[in-house]
Amino acid sequence: MPTSAKNPHLPFGDQRMAPWYGKDIISVKQFSRSDLEYVFAVAHEMRVMVERVGTFDLLKGKILANLFYEPSTRTSSSFAAAMERLGGSVISINEVRYSSVAKGESLPDTIRTLECYADVIVIRHPELGSAAIAAQAAHKPVINAGDGVGEHPTQALLDAFTIHEELVQMDDLTVTMLGDLKYGRTVHSLSRLLSLYNAKLNYVSPEILRMPPEIIAELEAKGIRQAEHNALDKVLPETDVLYVTRVQRERFESEEVYNSVKGAFVVDKNIMAGAKKKMIVMHPLPRVAEINVDFDDDPRAAYFRQMEFGLYVRMALLAMVLGKA
Amino acid sequence: MPTSAKNPHLPFGDQRMAPWYGKDIISVKQFSRSDLEYVFAVAHEMRVMVERVGTFDLLKGKILANLFYEPSTRTSSSFAAAMERLGGSVISINEVRYSSVAKGESLPDTIRTLECYADVIVIRHPELGSAAIAAQAAHKPVINAGDGVGEHPTQALLDAFTIHEELVQMDDLTVTMLGDLKYGRTVHSLSRLLSLYNAKLNYVSPEILRMPPEIIAELEAKGIRQAEHNALDKVLPETDVLYVTRVQRERFESEEVYNSVKGAFVVDKNIMAGAKKKMIVMHPLPRVAEINVDFDDDPRAAYFRQMEFGLYVRMALLAMVLGKA
Amino acid sequence: MPTSAKNPHLPFGDQRMAPWYGKDIISVKQFSRSDLEYVFAVAHEMRVMVERVGTFDLLKGKILANLFYEPSTRTSSSFAAAMERLGGSVISINEVRYSSVAKGESLPDTIRTLECYADVIVIRHPELGSAAIAAQAAHKPVINAGDGVGEHPTQALLDAFTIHEELVQMDDLTVTMLGDLKYGRTVHSLSRLLSLYNAKLNYVSPEILRMPPEIIAELEAKGIRQAEHNALDKVLPETDVLYVTRVQRERFESEEVYNSVKGAFVVDKNIMAGAKKKMIVMHPLPRVAEINVDFDDDPRAAYFRQMEFGLYVRMALLAMVLGKA
Repeated sequence: MPTSAKNPHLPFGDQRMAPWYGKDIISVKQFSRSDLEYVFAVAHEMRVMVERVGTFDLLKGKILANLFYEPSTRTSSSFAAAMERLGGSVISINEVRYSSVAKGESLPDTIRTLECYADVIVIRHPELGSAAIAAQAAHKPVINAGDGVGEHPTQALLDAFTIHEELVQMDDLTVTMLGDLKYGRTVHSLSRLLSLYNAKLNYVSPEILRMPPEIIAELEAKGIRQAEHNALDKVLPETDVLYVTRVQRERFESEEVYNSVKGAFVVDKNIMAGAKKKMIVMHPLPRVAEINVDFDDDPRAAYFRQMEFGLYVRMALLAMVLGKA
Repeated sequence: MPTSAKNPHLPFGDQRMAPWYGKDIISVKQFSRSDLEYVFAVAHEMRVMVERVGTFDLLKGKILANLFYEPSTRTSSSFAAAMERLGGSVISINEVRYSSVAKGESLPDTIRTLECYADVIVIRHPELGSAAIAAQAAHKPVINAGDGVGEHPTQALLDAFTIHEELVQMDDLTVTMLGDLKYGRTVHSLSRLLSLYNAKLNYVSPEILRMPPEIIAELEAKGIRQAEHNALDKVLPETDVLYVTRVQRERFESEEVYNSVKGAFVVDKNIMAGAKKKMIVMHPLPRVAEINVDFDDDPRAAYFRQMEFGLYVRMALLAMVLGKA
Repeated sequence: MPTSAKNPHLPFGDQRMAPWYGKDIISVKQFSRSDLEYVFAVAHEMRVMVERVGTFDLLKGKILANLFYEPSTRTSSSFAAAMERLGGSVISINEVRYSSVAKGESLPDTIRTLECYADVIVIRHPELGSAAIAAQAAHKPVINAGDGVGEHPTQALLDAFTIHEELVQMDDLTVTMLGDLKYGRTVHSLSRLLSLYNAKLNYVSPEILRMPPEIIAELEAKGIRQAEHNALDKVLPETDVLYVTRVQRERFESEEVYNSVKGAFVVDKNIMAGAKKKMIVMHPLPRVAEINVDFDDDPRAAYFRQMEFGLYVRMALLAMVLGKA
């Protein structure tokens, strides 16, 4: 359950009806299993509405401030489209580096300024904890769109929603995470959410890019089955969800080490012959070479649908915190 | 009274009803006391409407071109939000440096191009007089959002509106301006507007950042009481409005001189104990250290409300020049 | 006739009624004479509607992704305004260089991501053929807003529409193209469109900036009368449309050569005394010195009206590919 209500104007009955009204969305840790079910239900409703009518006026008259301290076309466009499809308006603030911030303005001051214009603030910031600082300063709801090595909760929620929409049920799935599991905050957040559903998790990564021990310990404490592997082939046949991430050259000490390793973490049509017929391949995008384009037309390739599901999840979250879900 | 009408399509009766229709807003010198009363009345109406319904369709179908030759997130966002809250649309042109202008296009040509798409143009430009040049080239109304060392009339209008909303009446107030009074165009424009209301003005600044003699002379000719001081404590008890501006390091010859001086121009909770209970502290923002955050929660701290009042003033001006106020 | 339909959901009757529904607009070569007549008719309808009501909700609920890999304020603003005036929404993606693309994402992946949010994509890209690549990847309609040395078809269409609106008929006109005819893709595309109307074409340019032989050959094969000249004065009296382009310093080996040449390709009030009373002067803008500002107020100066006609053409194209024309 969300913890703090910023807009306590709703009568008690409405508060019960709109439990996320006025709340911030900062971390996946805010979400219980029943909260997730609620997000999925609202997001699915959004999907149905978009497919039927494209756009509707649920948030007409509301303004989103899209505050990006570092560029992320994908995430900012997704939030902007979500707001537009709900009939609301968007003010994009991308050139933060040139503006008041460059003059030494603090993050709380920037937030308090923006909320004079806007009804909800989406923030992307390179520093861990910045979204929480913004949320504390704001009287309007704040949604974390990535705070450095911290979290990117809407990505994790859209990942979970994708699994829910594609595979219908979430319990007892075998999810294999492939690639850079050390630095990828995506896989960390997703594994936390999956722990609510008794998933079995396989981690396949280069030695130096393994899932952090603290996350493994956290999930173990919850009784989640986990296993680490060096190669995909053994676990692929049992996999319901293959979550691929990019292995970046910069993580390795030399070009040689990188080259000797990277091939083992590439997915293509050939390799996928060894997987189930009914399973999905996901990727947070952008994809470079870690999934071969020869697999794009396979029905199991869910990564572009995943982008689309992100639209519905962000529509759901905006409607929820503005009391309209 | 405004001087030139660009859209003379209105029948005479409507012209009388909408005296600012088709006008440019370039300078505070365009505004008589009765003009100000009109702006305040419309802006207050906007405040009531925003608090009641958030957004309304007064300017539905109108397009604002937000033309910023230098970045100003605060001002451009405020105009964008103002237009959106009136149901209009915004086209933001921020990257002027990369575009036609870089190919040598003149300002009048850029303006004549933009007005092919837009119904009203807001311009921010680093050069003195540029807004007037733009207004002359345009057939659509132009609003000056800052022309270098020139004016920033909507800032002065929102400052005056803030005083009007917070203190109800404008006459016979004692207004103390603190900080950099030499380079701050904000305080120059505001003092001109206040001269319409028989204010008493106190200037508190470092020796090298005093209010320019020509402004003092201009106000003296109007019979305005003015006094210069080196420190805040003597004038604070009589002050109704304390207008704080930033004292920038770069204005001083050395770090030592700056450090020896800056402390005298910082406002905090402690110092404010010596002020009236009913008065306000204003700041054009961004604020760095010149107002301590320990004062932010004091009811007299009006600087964030001032930002909000800016929204209403800009809504009022847009509606006025588009004939809808 | 357009070649591929991406949205084949329309029943057959509607397909016949909306022949451009779901199509891409990549090249002027897609347009037959009857296609042009259709574009002109829809664009004229848009003009009438904008003059009457400013904005209308033909594309309400639709989202345009304005994807600019290189800056072009003029073109991106024009498309944005076109979409807004049709009641749709715009997501602008200008900072492509900082985003996923910088991480190595391919153009097809970027397009497939964007179309998760948007209903139509406008793309400007520095590389020849990029718009066609984008169109192939996309399931939603793609409009080419310039692909390097390739085409800029909406510019050519607006040029042709300007002639149509200003001179009422298109057949048997004498069109004189002046300036840089070698590198100006504008004049190449326009001359192709004019070949559908039996125009007589005069080319007036510096020796080193002549119309490319392949275009002359292409038009000759269609029986179009063409003539090359070194100076404007001989052909000006017979000219119905004078299309001026910029002669750039960088095209010449030295400042001296450039200076010795440039004067012959400047249009001013004086020179225009030798032209017909009923004719028009066009320019793709931005204009630097190649048309003197002393001619701007002449009724024959059509270059700013040309910008405005661009709005109507882009409105028409957006409505057409979205099945609403």
